[in-house]
Amino acid sequence: MILCRTIPELHEALKQQQSKNAGSGTVGFVPTMGYLHEGHASLMRRSASENDISVLSIFVNPMQFGPNEDFDRYPRDEERDLALAGQNGIDIVFMPSVKEMYPKAPLTTVFVSQVTSRLCGASRPGHFDGVGLVVSKLFHLVQPDKAYFGMKDAQQVAVIQQMTDDLNFPVEIVPCPIVREPDGLALSSRNVYLTAEQREQAVMLSRSLAEAKQHFAKAGITAADIVEQTKQMIESAELAEIDYVELLHYPSLDLPDPAAVLQPERDTYILALAVKFGSTRLIDNQLFGYIGGDYHV
Amino acid sequence: MILCRTIPELHEALKQQQSKNAGSGTVGFVPTMGYLHEGHASLMRRSASENDISVLSIFVNPMQFGPNEDFDRYPRDEERDLALAGQNGIDIVFMPSVKEMYPKAPLTTVFVSQVTSRLCGASRPGHFDGVGLVVSKLFHLVQPDKAYFGMKDAQQVAVIQQMTDDLNFPVEIVPCPIVREPDGLALSSRNVYLTAEQREQAVMLSRSLAEAKQHFAKAGITAADIVEQTKQMIESAELAEIDYVELLHYPSLDLPDPAAVLQPERDTYILALAVKFGSTRLIDNQLFGYIGGDYHV
Repeated sequence: MILCRTIPELHEALKQQQSKNAGSGTVGFVPTMGYLHEGHASLMRRSASENDISVLSIFVNPMQFGPNEDFDRYPRDEERDLALAGQNGIDIVFMPSVKEMYPKAPLTTVFVSQVTSRLCGASRPGHFDGVGLVVSKLFHLVQPDKAYFGMKDAQQVAVIQQMTDDLNFPVEIVPCPIVREPDGLALSSRNVYLTAEQREQAVMLSRSLAEAKQHFAKAGITAADIVEQTKQMIESAELAEIDYVELLHYPSLDLPDPAAVLQPERDTYILALAVKFGSTRLIDNQLFGYIGGDYHV
Repeated sequence: MILCRTIPELHEALKQQQSKNAGSGTVGFVPTMGYLHEGHASLMRRSASENDISVLSIFVNPMQFGPNEDFDRYPRDEERDLALAGQNGIDIVFMPSVKEMYPKAPLTTVFVSQVTSRLCGASRPGHFDGVGLVVSKLFHLVQPDKAYFGMKDAQQVAVIQQMTDDLNFPVEIVPCPIVREPDGLALSSRNVYLTAEQREQAVMLSRSLAEAKQHFAKAGITAADIVEQTKQMIESAELAEIDYVELLHYPSLDLPDPAAVLQPERDTYILALAVKFGSTRLIDNQLFGYIGGDYHV
């Protein structure tokens, strides 16, 4: 495995790996912010199984954090990350500094409208501008054939797919299923922030999504019904503070008429939630209804 | 020469040309809106001389025209364009329909700030958003090593260079010198709109730039002096209606203090102008001072 901290090193490593593949190796790419867990590992293994060369990037991108968010305290563990990358089929790790990625303040914005107007796009102003910018940069630097993203960040997947389609990026976006703890909590680098008590109550996120899945199958149910039931269930965890609970069409992330009966035989929906425990904000989601495309539920 | 009207045809043609170059041919790219003239031909010849494979695109991009601009009447001559491409070393012509490039209304914006705030960016709101979008798409579709742009659209070159740097597009932007008629008028597809009388008076654009070049060498001259003299000279052409005449730093396109003495031994400046003759809007420009990088004057 080759570790690259600069762009020239990355280009050299790609060239070297390509020379082992007669110049025509397929490249799989897993962009991350590090502090890797089994969710990331599942992306790495999938990339390794589908491509000749697999590249992992580890970059905590300041541009996608708001001024009062957790950029400075975002967890980092380089040594453990590199070990995990090596165990999961990664050939090249790209771990640039902020200065390497942003030698000057960029003047270019990559903005995706509509898909970013709700959920984390609304709660975290500017977040998806930062994501669009860094993913564009990384796609250009790595030039992958396929890029792997976890569906825990379902809105991120929708935004990147829209950007890729609109700008004709020559890359296939591969959404991968959420990986969960045995009790259901979605894996996240931010879970490490939780106190024992918060961690215990955080199970209510996945539990409320599972419960909603039951209700969803009932005839005559509306978006408002599902959202209301889910909110009530989350609020039963006394340390939980809801940021949002929304039921939307997926991947457009349009709001259905809250009072209209859902049409799961025809439409794809996402129930998405963001909940704070103290200063730790967790997200989770569940797709429902007709699941087209490559989404995994 | 291969003519492609669809994206799959383009990919097939690139693959076919690459197979002649053992898969490692360099690709030069000349993006145009067609109605080609000797200015475009100079870009095509430069691309052909520097690359194994040269691609020309012809696409009148509706996204970069304002609602009251000349999208519908923009001149087109497919047969002549193809002949000229063949004579100037082009291997692949990509000539997509609007529907091929924009199957749905894009939700993604590629916006470059600061560099777009003056000149055509100010006169043509949204113009450079359309340019950023279509150039991003074309770069992703063609995947060139080098892309050739004429310096008549100097602001466009600055915007595309900024976007390329900020987003790490794996392409070298090659600015090429303005090609002029024997009397000095910069070649433009829009020159065909001019009446005989307008055409005669339009020579004042390049003449005023040449005159300014003389003044520029004088000690103690300011930006305001140069702009004032240039405006007066253009206004002596009675059919000319000035849109803008500005002296700026290049390529930042920052405004220097109008009253401060210019520092040509240290700084690069651009004198840029847009002038209407009837409903036809012409642009021209001249770089002055220390010419760094690859710009040609």
